[in-house]
Amino acid sequence: MKPNSILQELKGEVAAINQALVANLQTHVPLISQVGQHILLSGGKRVRPLLFLLSARMCGCRGDNLADFSTIFEYLHAATLLHDDVVDAASVRRGRSTANTIWGNQAVILVGDFLLAKALSLAVTTNRLKVLQVLSHTTTMMAEGEILQLLHTGNLDLTEAEYFEVITRKTAILMAAACRIGAILGNVPLEQEEALAQMGLNLGITFQVVDDILDFVGDEKELGKPVCADLKEGRVTLPLIHALAQAEPEDRQRLKEVARNLTPELVPELRELLAKYGSLNHARGIARGYTLKAQDNLALFPPTREKESFLAITAELLDRTH
Amino acid sequence: MKPNSILQELKGEVAAINQALVANLQTHVPLISQVGQHILLSGGKRVRPLLFLLSARMCGCRGDNLADFSTIFEYLHAATLLHDDVVDAASVRRGRSTANTIWGNQAVILVGDFLLAKALSLAVTTNRLKVLQVLSHTTTMMAEGEILQLLHTGNLDLTEAEYFEVITRKTAILMAAACRIGAILGNVPLEQEEALAQMGLNLGITFQVVDDILDFVGDEKELGKPVCADLKEGRVTLPLIHALAQAEPEDRQRLKEVARNLTPELVPELRELLAKYGSLNHARGIARGYTLKAQDNLALFPPTREKESFLAITAELLDRTH
Repeated sequence: MKPNSILQELKGEVAAINQALVANLQTHVPLISQVGQHILLSGGKRVRPLLFLLSARMCGCRGDNLADFSTIFEYLHAATLLHDDVVDAASVRRGRSTANTIWGNQAVILVGDFLLAKALSLAVTTNRLKVLQVLSHTTTMMAEGEILQLLHTGNLDLTEAEYFEVITRKTAILMAAACRIGAILGNVPLEQEEALAQMGLNLGITFQVVDDILDFVGDEKELGKPVCADLKEGRVTLPLIHALAQAEPEDRQRLKEVARNLTPELVPELRELLAKYGSLNHARGIARGYTLKAQDNLALFPPTREKESFLAITAELLDRTH
Repeated sequence: MKPNSILQELKGEVAAINQALVANLQTHVPLISQVGQHILLSGGKRVRPLLFLLSARMCGCRGDNLADFSTIFEYLHAATLLHDDVVDAASVRRGRSTANTIWGNQAVILVGDFLLAKALSLAVTTNRLKVLQVLSHTTTMMAEGEILQLLHTGNLDLTEAEYFEVITRKTAILMAAACRIGAILGNVPLEQEEALAQMGLNLGITFQVVDDILDFVGDEKELGKPVCADLKEGRVTLPLIHALAQAEPEDRQRLKEVARNLTPELVPELRELLAKYGSLNHARGIARGYTLKAQDNLALFPPTREKESFLAITAELLDRTH
C-alpha cells in the first residue's frame, strides 16, 4: 500500500474493523474460527466495512458499535468468497492456499453458511427492520448473480449488458447495501440514503471492472493469484467482450481459440490482441465513468472528513494495481 | 400415507403450503426454479411449515399470508438439504437423484444460498424484528450443528451427549423456531411462546431419533434411500452409540469393524448386534420420552382443533415408517 493511501490514513478504522471481525467470530466450534480467520485475515482491503463506517458517520451516526455492525458486510463477503472458491475449485486467493484446499469443500461450504447466519445475527442487533430488508434483498440478488455467473461460464457470446448485470449483482449491490445501511442508521432523508446507495453501486461497478482489467494485466505477486485466473475459470469479462465485439473476423477467431485454451504461453498474445483493439483502455474508460458518477452522487453532502475519504477511496479504487 | 393420517387430514393446509412454495420461488433465473422445485417438490412431509401454521393458528393468528410465511421454514430446510447433499456427495434422496448429481455441486451450493436468502426475505415481510432474531439465531445454530456433524464423521467414540447436541442443532432447533415464530405472530404471552418452542424442540428430537432408527431398520423403498445410508456416510447415531456402549468387548470390536466397512451383506449382522443389546428399543424408548414431553408442553393450551392436530402429529412422527 502506498504511504499516502487513503486506506493507510484510515488505519485506525481498519484496525477497529479487524478487531471486531475476530471478536464476533466467537463460537464453540474451533474449526469455524480457523476457517473464518483464514479467509477473513488474509489481507482483504476491508472496503465494504469502511464504506459502511464512513457512510454511517457522514450521516451523523455515532456509537461504539459501528465497528461491530461493519463486520456484517465483511462476513457476507467472506461467505461468498468461501462458496465461490468451492464453486471454482480455486486453489489460491490473495497469495495463500484457499480454505477448500486446506479443510476440504465440506467444511468450507458449512462455514460459509455460518458466516452468512452470523452476518444476519449482527444485522438483527441494529434493531432496525429496514436494515434486514435491505440485507435480505441484497443476499437474494447476490445469490442470483452468482448463479448467473455460473451459467455464463465459458460463454464467449456474453454481452456487455449481461456482464454488467452479473457484476452489479455479485459485487456492486453489497457495496451499495453497506452505504445504504450506514445512511439508514444515520436516519437521513431518503434522498441522501438513495444517493449514498447509488454511490456504493457505482463504486462497486468500478471496483469490479478494475478487478477484471487487473486479471489481464496485473502483477501475479501483487494480485496474489495467477494471471488471467478469471478467464481460465471461464469468466468472460469486459475487456474480452469488447475485443471480441471489435475484432476483425480472423482476430476474433484467434481470440476465441486463445480464450478457450489459455496457457501461460498464450497470455502475451492475448494481451496484444486486447491492446490492438483498445479493449483495456475501453474498460478503463468505463471504470473512470462510474468513478465520476460515484463522486457526483456525493454532491448533495456538505464537505466533511468522511466525504473527503469517500472521494479519495473512489479515486484510489480506480487507480489500484491490486 | 395411511388414510387416517393426520397429514392426510391436513391436506388442505399442505396444498396451500405447496402452492406458496412454488409461488414464492419466482426468479428470473430459470435454473433456480428448476433446482428449487426439484428439492422442494420431491415429496417432503412439510412438517416444518405445518408446525408453524398450526402454532400461529392455535395462538390466534389469522391472516391470508400464513401459508407464505410457512415457506420460510421449508426453504431453510431445503437449503440445508442441498448443502448437505453436496457435503455428503449423496446421490439419492427420497427415491430420486439428488440435485447435485443432476446440476452439479456448483449450482446446488448457490441455489442453497438463494433459498436461504429467500427465506430471510420472506421473514422480513412479517415486519417483526423478533422473528428475524429467532431465525438468525436458528440458522447460526444450525450451521454450527452441521459443522459439528461433519467433525464427528466416522467417530465411533461419539457420546450420547454429543449426538443430542448435533441433532438438536441440525433438526430440532428449526422445528422449535417454526413453533416459536407462530406464537410470536399470535402475540401470546412469553410462557406460551416458550412452551410451543419447547414442544417443537422435543418433537424435533423425536423426529431425528426416529429417522436414525429407520436408517437401520426401515424399508429402502419407503425411505427412498439405501438402508444404513447415514452410517455409510460416517454418521454415528443413537442405536449404534448405545450398542457400542453396552456390548461385550468382542461384540464391540465386531460392531466397529462392521460400522467402518459396511456392505449390504453385513447389514443383517449389524441389525442382529443392535437387537442383541436392545439398542433399537432403547432409541425407541428415548424417542417416546421426547414425544411425551412434547405433548406435555401443550398442557397449558385449551383444547382446540390445532392442539388436537399437534397431538396427532407428535404421535404419528413417533410411529412413522418413513
